[in-house]
Amino acid sequence: MEHTYRLVISCPDRVGIVAKVSNFLTNYNGWITEASHHADSQAGWFFMRHEIRASSMPFGLEQFRMAFEPIAREFDMHWQVTDSAQPKRVVLMCSRESHCLFDLLHRWHSRELNVEVVAVVSNHDDLRRMVDWHDIPFHHVPVNRDNREEAFAEVGRLFDAYQADVIVLARYMQILPPEVCERYSGRVINIHHSFLPSFAGARPYHQAYSRGVKLIGATCHYVTQDLDEGPIIEQDVIRINHSDSIEDMVRLGKDVEKNVLARGLRAHVEDRVIIHENKTVVFG
Amino acid sequence: MEHTYRLVISCPDRVGIVAKVSNFLTNYNGWITEASHHADSQAGWFFMRHEIRASSMPFGLEQFRMAFEPIAREFDMHWQVTDSAQPKRVVLMCSRESHCLFDLLHRWHSRELNVEVVAVVSNHDDLRRMVDWHDIPFHHVPVNRDNREEAFAEVGRLFDAYQADVIVLARYMQILPPEVCERYSGRVINIHHSFLPSFAGARPYHQAYSRGVKLIGATCHYVTQDLDEGPIIEQDVIRINHSDSIEDMVRLGKDVEKNVLARGLRAHVEDRVIIHENKTVVFG
Amino acid sequence: MEHTYRLVISCPDRVGIVAKVSNFLTNYNGWITEASHHADSQAGWFFMRHEIRASSMPFGLEQFRMAFEPIAREFDMHWQVTDSAQPKRVVLMCSRESHCLFDLLHRWHSRELNVEVVAVVSNHDDLRRMVDWHDIPFHHVPVNRDNREEAFAEVGRLFDAYQADVIVLARYMQILPPEVCERYSGRVINIHHSFLPSFAGARPYHQAYSRGVKLIGATCHYVTQDLDEGPIIEQDVIRINHSDSIEDMVRLGKDVEKNVLARGLRAHVEDRVIIHENKTVVFG
Amino acid sequence: MEHTYRLVISCPDRVGIVAKVSNFLTNYNGWITEASHHADSQAGWFFMRHEIRASSMPFGLEQFRMAFEPIAREFDMHWQVTDSAQPKRVVLMCSRESHCLFDLLHRWHSRELNVEVVAVVSNHDDLRRMVDWHDIPFHHVPVNRDNREEAFAEVGRLFDAYQADVIVLARYMQILPPEVCERYSGRVINIHHSFLPSFAGARPYHQAYSRGVKLIGATCHYVTQDLDEGPIIEQDVIRINHSDSIEDMVRLGKDVEKNVLARGLRAHVEDRVIIHENKTVVFG
Repeated sequence: MEHTYRLVISCPDRVGIVAKVSNFLTNYNGWITEASHHADSQAGWFFMRHEIRASSMPFGLEQFRMAFEPIAREFDMHWQVTDSAQPKRVVLMCSRESHCLFDLLHRWHSRELNVEVVAVVSNHDDLRRMVDWHDIPFHHVPVNRDNREEAFAEVGRLFDAYQADVIVLARYMQILPPEVCERYSGRVINIHHSFLPSFAGARPYHQAYSRGVKLIGATCHYVTQDLDEGPIIEQDVIRINHSDSIEDMVRLGKDVEKNVLARGLRAHVEDRVIIHENKTVVFG
Repeated sequence: MEHTYRLVISCPDRVGIVAKVSNFLTNYNGWITEASHHADSQAGWFFMRHEIRASSMPFGLEQFRMAFEPIAREFDMHWQVTDSAQPKRVVLMCSRESHCLFDLLHRWHSRELNVEVVAVVSNHDDLRRMVDWHDIPFHHVPVNRDNREEAFAEVGRLFDAYQADVIVLARYMQILPPEVCERYSGRVINIHHSFLPSFAGARPYHQAYSRGVKLIGATCHYVTQDLDEGPIIEQDVIRINHSDSIEDMVRLGKDVEKNVLARGLRAHVEDRVIIHENKTVVFG
Repeated sequence: MEHTYRLVISCPDRVGIVAKVSNFLTNYNGWITEASHHADSQAGWFFMRHEIRASSMPFGLEQFRMAFEPIAREFDMHWQVTDSAQPKRVVLMCSRESHCLFDLLHRWHSRELNVEVVAVVSNHDDLRRMVDWHDIPFHHVPVNRDNREEAFAEVGRLFDAYQADVIVLARYMQILPPEVCERYSGRVINIHHSFLPSFAGARPYHQAYSRGVKLIGATCHYVTQDLDEGPIIEQDVIRINHSDSIEDMVRLGKDVEKNVLARGLRAHVEDRVIIHENKTVVFG
Repeated sequence: MEHTYRLVISCPDRVGIVAKVSNFLTNYNGWITEASHHADSQAGWFFMRHEIRASSMPFGLEQFRMAFEPIAREFDMHWQVTDSAQPKRVVLMCSRESHCLFDLLHRWHSRELNVEVVAVVSNHDDLRRMVDWHDIPFHHVPVNRDNREEAFAEVGRLFDAYQADVIVLARYMQILPPEVCERYSGRVINIHHSFLPSFAGARPYHQAYSRGVKLIGATCHYVTQDLDEGPIIEQDVIRINHSDSIEDMVRLGKDVEKNVLARGLRAHVEDRVIIHENKTVVFG
């Protein structure tokens, strides 16, 4: 696959944005392979994403940025341009449950997911062997009531040392401290094992069981300081019935969790997600 | 279709229930066309439903009841036996939104739904013409802040006068008073336009929009005195994305609401639903 | 809702199309509310749809066409521009099954579907009363082995007399003659009660039952001379299991058929569907 | 989890089967944890499955069989009783695609799937390393046009040597010879990457792409001598649209394939599937 530039923009809506951007691309002979737009009339905001064949344009990422800057300024854009040839650096965090971690590792291993998994960090040592097999550094950083501060200082150092672009909580089961949420805002992705906002907090399958719902779900969202309240990227559900015990729900839920997390992460690393206030635009 | 007896049982779980009941049926030569069981090991409760060809048994409903009574007593059963040839008497309640009402009327009209729709009661007069066309009595009982008490007294009189077996709130939009909920406990079915427990209360699509969920849903449940907290019969969802406005969600949600309500009602009138505490067993 | 112009384009792919079109719109101050693009790299074809606030532009549909014509010629475009304020004229065709007809009539009646239903044509008289209630002309044109030619001549005259933009086979159960397919190419929409290409032809639920599939479906497609082979607009499925008889499948399938047909028709009348060879691009 | 006996029965339908079986269980004090029945009125056939707590009964599997034999004879039953404490011996077959193999290995490794994976057999060597990591014997048996006979003789010897109860074609991509299908009838499970009967045979995603379907699927079925025609155990689909290339379909389809195969295999190894003619009863 030829590599592409991904130009992602959000800005106040007004006439002429599309023309300006597409003229820019045409002037530099850019071959658009994918283009997505969304005008949120309620918020008065405009969202836009283009993929352009890198080889069709006369310059690299830096020059692209310099050339586009004046347009961005004119329209007050939040924007970025990335190169699909530079996969994002991902740190995976896990605890004892293996299904999300193994699933992401396999997608990476089989080149389905175009990222660089630079490290795995876990508060338990259980899953080390599988990570070793993939030749990925595994860091065991135990967390308990007494060492939270230093533990998360260590976690933060690891993020920095590995120059993480994205952090994925693959059923990590610990709450990140506010300063980490803040510092990596928009770059920490969590999978919650319920269809949020139902059953936020602990033990969502137990909550679902006792409420007697007929579908259970999972939610992939950005982590913010408000637990389970961050912008939602992706959700899905699976049907259950009265004969399903909590153990059945846990088992059935795993498949939903894995797939929802993988889809959400994929959207993020392909720069398809734009956060606006507490919601997301996800260009399919 | 030949008519059937439906024997529906719930009781504390112990050895020998199935044998006792199936011996009873075999002794009377009962031809079982459908049998469903569920043992809730957590609650220690057993649930069971049989459909038996009426013509295979030597007696009618009354004699069936008398013959079965000793077994029911021995096992402390909550139980009932009904005859599929006696369709339940249904009162539909609606307001201004037509989609659920029309859908149920059409299912009734085309004989898909085996009930007797004995009346429609509405707090607005808008949908009268369609009800008239079906030759079903339409009662306009306006409800406002000042007349709630007498209005619901009138509604209650109508339920009694029509000898309603089931009351369906087909987007009725009014909260029934506690005494009506109490009196018709387990017989009033509501459709709520969200995936409960998410977005209980008013304007669920607005709530869903502002939370930025990626699926919207509907919930069919029994009405209790706790608003939107009653036992859930059926739920379903539909995918949305960032481009869907609240109006789009309202439109897309209608199809889910209709189908979920129709499936829930169907399960109820076929005596497939057993309420136990605040949950349901629904035999498919 | 303010009305919009819908500019729908397909053409050979090359650099500069988007820029040209968006410049055109910007030059005339067009406020884009929705924009969709698709580049089919395999076919080398480009597809595009814009909705533009009519009030933001200085002219009506005719002038729009004249102004845009040179661009269309330059890029060899198949294209059209329509005005959402001019709802399409729809002729519904049905037989004896009521579910799809009633569903579409209700969507029209409740203004969910922005079309003008100008007539209903049926080979049976069964559904006349409901159509009358809606004050829509009902034409009974019986079709049998001996009168097919004159019957479809009459049907064709009706299409012409009513100036039908779209013809919907709402479970019509008759095969249109080739010349009608030809003449109304891309404007006749059918609902087939299976997940095509499985179970084409007659009695698809019987075929599905005997094959033992675990999901049944429905397909909304354009009618061509090749029976059940036309471009697919929309499909969906519903889960069944071993306990579902053919009658159950027929009943369950109805809900899928109704929804799939309604979604397919909606996409068509909003000019969201572009046919290319034997496939469709459907802009969501 | 306490272990259970699973008594699985199919026989011609008549009055008294349930009573006879449940009396048998009650007489031996059997505590039923799950009971499922199905009467196929069209085929005149009855299906039944019970799970009984092993500890509640006074005997082991052999004595159970002897005690039950007279009833089985009386009703002409096909039947078996198994013990959940004796997991089935599974041979996995794969080729180069890793997703189904890894998924099943992970479910086994994390004890989600209660089987004994005794060997992996592949016509390519690519996936050996991952199998080694799980400490499972890996057998590379290359197959080409010239060696098919001896290759499958070797495969057959491996099945025998490992005393395989079940053989899973986890995207094996080779057609088993008729004598293997025959010999292991009802015990070889395949995943086909389409929603059968659509797109049987080779390259189903290419077929789906060129037909322009709006959903793609996967089918888990028993292997018979008629390619892709065996009894279906489980199916599922995922939505696609015009923007999905064949590569996208392959990627999206993998998740469906994995889940459908895992669910089908799980049903089989829990003795939930009964084959009758070319269809299955699957007790949920």
